[in-house]
Amino acid sequence: MSLTEDQSANIESARSEAAPTRRVTVPAMEELLYQPKSVLDHGFVRVVDYMGDDAAVVQAARVSYGRGTRKVSQDAGLIRYLMRHRHSTPFEMCEIKFHVKLPIFVARQWIRHRTANVNEYSARYSVLDKEFYVPDLEYIKHQRRKDQEPEGQASLFPEDRNVVPIHTAAQSRTNRQGREDVLSPDDARQVLEILQNEGSHAYRSYLKLLNEDIAGNQKDPSKVGIARELARLVLPVNIYTQWYWKTNLHNLMHFLSLRSEPHAQYEIRAYAEAMQTIMQSWVPLTYAAFCEYRLGAATFSATMLEVLRRKLAGENVEQATSGLSTREWAEMMAALGLER
Amino acid sequence: MSLTEDQSANIESARSEAAPTRRVTVPAMEELLYQPKSVLDHGFVRVVDYMGDDAAVVQAARVSYGRGTRKVSQDAGLIRYLMRHRHSTPFEMCEIKFHVKLPIFVARQWIRHRTANVNEYSARYSVLDKEFYVPDLEYIKHQRRKDQEPEGQASLFPEDRNVVPIHTAAQSRTNRQGREDVLSPDDARQVLEILQNEGSHAYRSYLKLLNEDIAGNQKDPSKVGIARELARLVLPVNIYTQWYWKTNLHNLMHFLSLRSEPHAQYEIRAYAEAMQTIMQSWVPLTYAAFCEYRLGAATFSATMLEVLRRKLAGENVEQATSGLSTREWAEMMAALGLER
Amino acid sequence: MSLTEDQSANIESARSEAAPTRRVTVPAMEELLYQPKSVLDHGFVRVVDYMGDDAAVVQAARVSYGRGTRKVSQDAGLIRYLMRHRHSTPFEMCEIKFHVKLPIFVARQWIRHRTANVNEYSARYSVLDKEFYVPDLEYIKHQRRKDQEPEGQASLFPEDRNVVPIHTAAQSRTNRQGREDVLSPDDARQVLEILQNEGSHAYRSYLKLLNEDIAGNQKDPSKVGIARELARLVLPVNIYTQWYWKTNLHNLMHFLSLRSEPHAQYEIRAYAEAMQTIMQSWVPLTYAAFCEYRLGAATFSATMLEVLRRKLAGENVEQATSGLSTREWAEMMAALGLER
Amino acid sequence: MSLTEDQSANIESARSEAAPTRRVTVPAMEELLYQPKSVLDHGFVRVVDYMGDDAAVVQAARVSYGRGTRKVSQDAGLIRYLMRHRHSTPFEMCEIKFHVKLPIFVARQWIRHRTANVNEYSARYSVLDKEFYVPDLEYIKHQRRKDQEPEGQASLFPEDRNVVPIHTAAQSRTNRQGREDVLSPDDARQVLEILQNEGSHAYRSYLKLLNEDIAGNQKDPSKVGIARELARLVLPVNIYTQWYWKTNLHNLMHFLSLRSEPHAQYEIRAYAEAMQTIMQSWVPLTYAAFCEYRLGAATFSATMLEVLRRKLAGENVEQATSGLSTREWAEMMAALGLER
Repeated sequence: MSLTEDQSANIESARSEAAPTRRVTVPAMEELLYQPKSVLDHGFVRVVDYMGDDAAVVQAARVSYGRGTRKVSQDAGLIRYLMRHRHSTPFEMCEIKFHVKLPIFVARQWIRHRTANVNEYSARYSVLDKEFYVPDLEYIKHQRRKDQEPEGQASLFPEDRNVVPIHTAAQSRTNRQGREDVLSPDDARQVLEILQNEGSHAYRSYLKLLNEDIAGNQKDPSKVGIARELARLVLPVNIYTQWYWKTNLHNLMHFLSLRSEPHAQYEIRAYAEAMQTIMQSWVPLTYAAFCEYRLGAATFSATMLEVLRRKLAGENVEQATSGLSTREWAEMMAALGLER
Repeated sequence: MSLTEDQSANIESARSEAAPTRRVTVPAMEELLYQPKSVLDHGFVRVVDYMGDDAAVVQAARVSYGRGTRKVSQDAGLIRYLMRHRHSTPFEMCEIKFHVKLPIFVARQWIRHRTANVNEYSARYSVLDKEFYVPDLEYIKHQRRKDQEPEGQASLFPEDRNVVPIHTAAQSRTNRQGREDVLSPDDARQVLEILQNEGSHAYRSYLKLLNEDIAGNQKDPSKVGIARELARLVLPVNIYTQWYWKTNLHNLMHFLSLRSEPHAQYEIRAYAEAMQTIMQSWVPLTYAAFCEYRLGAATFSATMLEVLRRKLAGENVEQATSGLSTREWAEMMAALGLER
Repeated sequence: MSLTEDQSANIESARSEAAPTRRVTVPAMEELLYQPKSVLDHGFVRVVDYMGDDAAVVQAARVSYGRGTRKVSQDAGLIRYLMRHRHSTPFEMCEIKFHVKLPIFVARQWIRHRTANVNEYSARYSVLDKEFYVPDLEYIKHQRRKDQEPEGQASLFPEDRNVVPIHTAAQSRTNRQGREDVLSPDDARQVLEILQNEGSHAYRSYLKLLNEDIAGNQKDPSKVGIARELARLVLPVNIYTQWYWKTNLHNLMHFLSLRSEPHAQYEIRAYAEAMQTIMQSWVPLTYAAFCEYRLGAATFSATMLEVLRRKLAGENVEQATSGLSTREWAEMMAALGLER
Repeated sequence: MSLTEDQSANIESARSEAAPTRRVTVPAMEELLYQPKSVLDHGFVRVVDYMGDDAAVVQAARVSYGRGTRKVSQDAGLIRYLMRHRHSTPFEMCEIKFHVKLPIFVARQWIRHRTANVNEYSARYSVLDKEFYVPDLEYIKHQRRKDQEPEGQASLFPEDRNVVPIHTAAQSRTNRQGREDVLSPDDARQVLEILQNEGSHAYRSYLKLLNEDIAGNQKDPSKVGIARELARLVLPVNIYTQWYWKTNLHNLMHFLSLRSEPHAQYEIRAYAEAMQTIMQSWVPLTYAAFCEYRLGAATFSATMLEVLRRKLAGENVEQATSGLSTREWAEMMAALGLER
């Protein structure tokens, strides 16, 4: 991530001003405010504003006239209760606004979360910078071979094709990923080269189509440039865009729980993880309950519950007699920390 | 539930017409169409229109050009996969429209589900019928005594006050509800009397304020009635209203899973249960997956999972050493079908 | 509106605390914060938190790194532009949280605005106070007589029945409201009496059903009270409830523009007007643009535009030759400040 | 637009089946069903399902038990009334599902309409076809020169930069577009060449990264391909994607009114226009009211209304004395069909 001098000065200037407020403040968030947290090669997440704190959740749940005046331990208990019983509305009473810089293909996954407010930098009217996402070598994945698909069911549904990061030990083990699938150093170099070249190639064409005095390009006065909204057609989906993204705490948790799952693409997970640490600073009690009842929890189906009951009664249940598919069996064993 | 002759005729007339369509049809739904299914004392739910079926979920998940042409077993597998992994968008591709008659206090809980389309009968402009919900004796609940609250935590949060139906054996057992809380036959009779009288009393005032020739009332020509939007101010929240309510299958399932929980008030649960049987006729594969992965499933927190692991490893874990509160311990034991 | 000592103390305590923040602050809002603004006889609106200001709208529209550093005149120009061209997303970047006390029938109209976050005081678990809305005499409306309906079209659509406040001179004139419809002082007294009695009557039954030591009621130890969620069935829709209501600036304006229209029921308009003055303190530039392009604006249909063109070309167009219905003609003339 | 044999066969097969239904049917929609309507060079829109018709709007507005049994003229009157007075909920009772093929940059504008259901073809798991949008020569726009910006205000807000199609006579006139801005035939050829080459270049890299036996490519068995979710990083935003998109009639109209405006980018307007003709077949009465009160209507600000009043009173108002900016003045004159 690199900011221009102007951008850094703007951020510094915003950070240097303080005013008294009667509203709820969270000192840990004041510390973070406006500062970009680096994500991927050129991206970032920064908090631009926030509303509410853990006590605001409690206040709304009680529809009270004052602030949460009770002990922290009681607030924690109520927050845990709300989280456990899916009382989502009190968490909607806290709001956060981020400024995010992210590749277009990540933005396209992100925007599927509809209950948020978004203002994106417009490539119809503004020129995009020459910044393309190129993954670190360790995150370049390979295509899983069909014959390795666990259940044959995968062909039913293309989205079910299992793709995993190389070198992520835990994942590798549970997915029994063989070494033979990994890119050789030579292949890897070539992949990176292609990714880097494509960005440069497209950006040169972009500048040519624009024909403006911009980004080191010199306008050819004998030619007419085309509209920015059309010139950008040649730009690949790994170019960076940016937006203001504002959502409430309930929807933020929904986003984080879906996007920090191992099935989520690595690149959006990187953003989700950066935002998790911000959430922890903002609403520590809610974050603890979120870890306990969402991120660290597991849901067992009716059949799985039956298997559990039989196991707890001492029966030696095997996959074959469990009523579960091999895949579900594996998921259940993984959740219980057992060998398959 | 009682319909006027006009209403019945309208329904019959709508049912008698059929036209050929190229759209997806579900014969079981055609059978149900327009017919009111009785709920509570004067309410009903009836399906007025539907869009899509199980195959439409599959079609959308695959973004395919044709209808689901594969075998039912494959469709079922994919639908189960989608449900298990919280892929909600394909279920949004089916839509259903209900006409519902329900008491205002139920409507107020129902409307909190925001992702639906609603058109309600307007008491600003139309006169409400003299129909008030009065519960059956067996559903008249009593207030749980404070000293019976399981953990002392309940005082933290008023919503957590546990109220349970009398005579619901299963519930009674897990809640260790003592007989001494139950209404005596005399008390019960008096409760019903109050409920019935209040409705009649309010409705008489309503008619007087309206001063219209309506509902058997004779207008007093020497007086000016007040606007309907004001006359209705005296009507209690157990009077019946009605609305058209349309939602997609994903949001329907969210509604059903929240509103068929034992914590939901009995009256809205009655509607949720009626709608569940309709859902089963409409999308049987999705319904089966819904039962398996939602209604019949249980979510265990991080600490509960740890307890499970210890138990499965043969350790004799007690509540005191579990790290769980007594309430969470009880919830966990109940989910596993074990004694506390 | 009357607050208990506890409530007032809570509010005072919240107002007395201030902390430094790096976030945007609006001094005029800090002044208002937490203070209830009286609406109707027992209701109020108070701001509990806010996020953003006029500059935050500009900042989001520009997706900029800093705060709005340009001149106010430029910010105003951009905000006017955004409002005029229906660019709604930058206005979604500001958020406001209210605590509102309001009658249930108003809450039922209000909740139809779905894009907001709500936590309502729960009558399932808590006891409602004995506070019922009884309108001031001047707002007690009378039912418009059918033969006065302007176009005969009204019978098409019950919601179109025109009801207007008595004594609202401007309205009366345009609606040609005759004196004979107005309540006589005697009738009015009787109406008020009924409204007041109904509240008291219902509340007595409520307390009896609860059988708790509450609100001056003495519990009868020989009887078992019923659950609060059932006792409240007898309460009329003019009893007061309260909620936390949080929304963004765009949706707030949508709410205000619909609910401050003359067609909105007077009681919800009273809330909308109180919130308008708050909005003006919060985002004065946006408020000015809102008045110019929404509240004070008028939309002319294709046919109306044609009439305008003919009129501006000097033609003397009458309703009969306008292609407009008498009602639309009247609406157009009213918007232009012309006699019918 | 070109379909594979399989896709055409699927569509034909779906069209050949018909079943009787008791639901509302619209013969004109049955005729259209499943058939792709060509948009841009490779895109299409096709209706996959629909729910409701004009009468369903009326039925919901009246919360009636039967179908709309009144005369069409009355239904039309009510629908016009609802549209005029922004009663949006009855229009939400009709639903439509489209299958759309569209370039990614159009999809990114489209998805900003949040109140819809979407299932997009996933480039994480599936390989995209080699189809890139290349505009027709007449729609290749040029960048407007800064010195031509109407009011100097444009620099305030980059999004306000006015871009217009060449050769669109009407637009050209009101925008006083000079000939000197138009691309020469040579420049135009070069622009097209760049656009076409970029697509091919990127797609070759895409296939190389995938290293699969696909799209005429032959896998190199000595190399390991990378995951599809990463290979697609090099693809430009004018490649085609496809999705199922389902929305209700109210939101469809909102989409159409925003996306058929001259300020919308031409490419998304092309889709909006195709969908307008579909809407006309589906709900002709609603469509007529939509044209009258939305598409063909104009909103005048408070200041504009004052100008109108003065003009109608015979005063000769000029821009300088109007209180309007030159741009607003021009917009007003355009709406009235007057010279500036």
